[in-house]
Amino acid sequence: MNPKRTFLIVVSLVFLLTFCCIAAVENAHPLPSWNDGSTKQSIIEFVETVTTEGSPDYVAPAQRIAVFDNDGTLWAEQPLYFEGFFTVDRVKTLAPGHPEWKEEEPFASLLTGNAREVLAGDVQSMQEILIATHSGMSTEEFEKLVNRWISTAKHPVTNRPFTQMVYQPMLELMAYLRASGFKTFIVSGGGSEFMRPWAEDVYGIPPEQVVGTTVKTKYEMCNNKPVLMRLPEFDFIDVNEGKPIGIEKFIGRVPLVAFGNSDGDLQMLQWTDAGPGKRLSAVIHHTDAEREWAYDDQSPIGHLEETLKTANAKGWTVVDMKRDWKFIFHKEENP
Amino acid sequence: MNPKRTFLIVVSLVFLLTFCCIAAVENAHPLPSWNDGSTKQSIIEFVETVTTEGSPDYVAPAQRIAVFDNDGTLWAEQPLYFEGFFTVDRVKTLAPGHPEWKEEEPFASLLTGNAREVLAGDVQSMQEILIATHSGMSTEEFEKLVNRWISTAKHPVTNRPFTQMVYQPMLELMAYLRASGFKTFIVSGGGSEFMRPWAEDVYGIPPEQVVGTTVKTKYEMCNNKPVLMRLPEFDFIDVNEGKPIGIEKFIGRVPLVAFGNSDGDLQMLQWTDAGPGKRLSAVIHHTDAEREWAYDDQSPIGHLEETLKTANAKGWTVVDMKRDWKFIFHKEENP
Repeated sequence: MNPKRTFLIVVSLVFLLTFCCIAAVENAHPLPSWNDGSTKQSIIEFVETVTTEGSPDYVAPAQRIAVFDNDGTLWAEQPLYFEGFFTVDRVKTLAPGHPEWKEEEPFASLLTGNAREVLAGDVQSMQEILIATHSGMSTEEFEKLVNRWISTAKHPVTNRPFTQMVYQPMLELMAYLRASGFKTFIVSGGGSEFMRPWAEDVYGIPPEQVVGTTVKTKYEMCNNKPVLMRLPEFDFIDVNEGKPIGIEKFIGRVPLVAFGNSDGDLQMLQWTDAGPGKRLSAVIHHTDAEREWAYDDQSPIGHLEETLKTANAKGWTVVDMKRDWKFIFHKEENP
Repeated sequence: MNPKRTFLIVVSLVFLLTFCCIAAVENAHPLPSWNDGSTKQSIIEFVETVTTEGSPDYVAPAQRIAVFDNDGTLWAEQPLYFEGFFTVDRVKTLAPGHPEWKEEEPFASLLTGNAREVLAGDVQSMQEILIATHSGMSTEEFEKLVNRWISTAKHPVTNRPFTQMVYQPMLELMAYLRASGFKTFIVSGGGSEFMRPWAEDVYGIPPEQVVGTTVKTKYEMCNNKPVLMRLPEFDFIDVNEGKPIGIEKFIGRVPLVAFGNSDGDLQMLQWTDAGPGKRLSAVIHHTDAEREWAYDDQSPIGHLEETLKTANAKGWTVVDMKRDWKFIFHKEENP
């Protein structure tokens, strides 16, 4: 290596180091939308412990995997999972071509406004509807449908675009983790192809880090161009036991950090917690009826009962939204 | 921003820029184990075109996905896919507990040394053997088996560890792509859990970027600790049409670059080629009987016929190993 080059490298490094120190001091207060208290403290302490070289609990950057449930963890899920609203809108769009749906359940209930009961209750019905609305087109066409819907549809209660109903404290948490060398993944019961078109813009999570429910697809040539057709059959359902199974299948490492909010996340949190060394399994508890919704074991959507019991028994971090979050929704929507 | 900080940032950037220019000049000769010629040139030209800002074919870093078949593309595959040797060793280890295998096909042939015929020929037989040897244990136990095998087993012809039979030019190509902002993925018919334990060390590809064949797993509590048990049933077979299906399912973007070497890669190469804008679909042709093996449409392993025809018809890059590669195997093994 020639002396000129060595000199330049050394000088660059000195300046960079100085800059990094300044940045580090400024970054000593991450998570600005989280209230000070034991929850915020436990998260920051965990991150500092696993990222401090020489610490007995140090974890190399490549192994810093953080997984997040989506509905109720990264964005709201009331009064219906947001993909449910997409589904209802799809059923309404397709209904003129299916006059039989007026009499036929579960479509009839759904068309008359009982979406919450249908989509929250019976898995079989939900699957029938998802299949009817989410298949029979190419992956490319489905992506267009999702993009069109997500950029125009509004939440029936808040009248905001759904992508503005993401939680500001969770955006900050994911950014903080990424700045600390973590790779962030979504592990959600929602459809992979429903989340991927907007997850990168909204969460900073690229398509290849979205693990969700998938339908089977078929590779076909269509006008000499290959397409993947979405078939009316589930390929993988990413809830309950499906979450650790999906994590192993898609990611292949036990996460270091997992956040969930319902009983559908229990196994993912257990699986994370059981990994070697220190792990952070955390539960978002919806306790703020004024700023968001307050619900747990009485709600069919985001039902939280076993997971909260386990969290308390195991000493997992439980985020109390009312107590722990200064702001709930995406910054632009906060006063 | 305070003036001191601004000054430091500006000075750092100036020095960094100077350093980068020097590095860029030195990096102007990537792929040192590739002979100069049209193949190397076409790869470098492609990478420069899609990574040059302002170019009409510029692709943002987040969308720079490169996928690689493994057997015959990143490491050798003769006289048997290397996972086949692992499988034969597993059958031999398990044979004392299965006296019936002496009479029962496909195990009998395999135990008497006809692995190539069995494992290359009949998919049904191969599946039976894979199932018998790759399931009935937890994912953690399977990982240990693979780690033990890969660190001790030797190739029967070269007597080298299998991980030293990776192709040096492909290691350089993947490093060059990553230095150019690409994310590199394996998309292989081999088992995901067979490749993941060593792919990071050997190829620099982390587990979450390995897409392969998977078996179903079951989430169970075992002594109060969750485990994923490998079941005797395929979950996903990542060959032929399975490759674009797997790419969409696991990655969710059409690759910008794809390398394969057999008819099992045809659909992956077509899918990549059909993406919008410039794409690089390339075929490795095994032409060097002296330094490696020479085979194509007469070999049951790595059979190459339709893919080569399509490559020639479409003008895809065809790598002629004998002509294009200065060295074949991992550097340490080259003279």
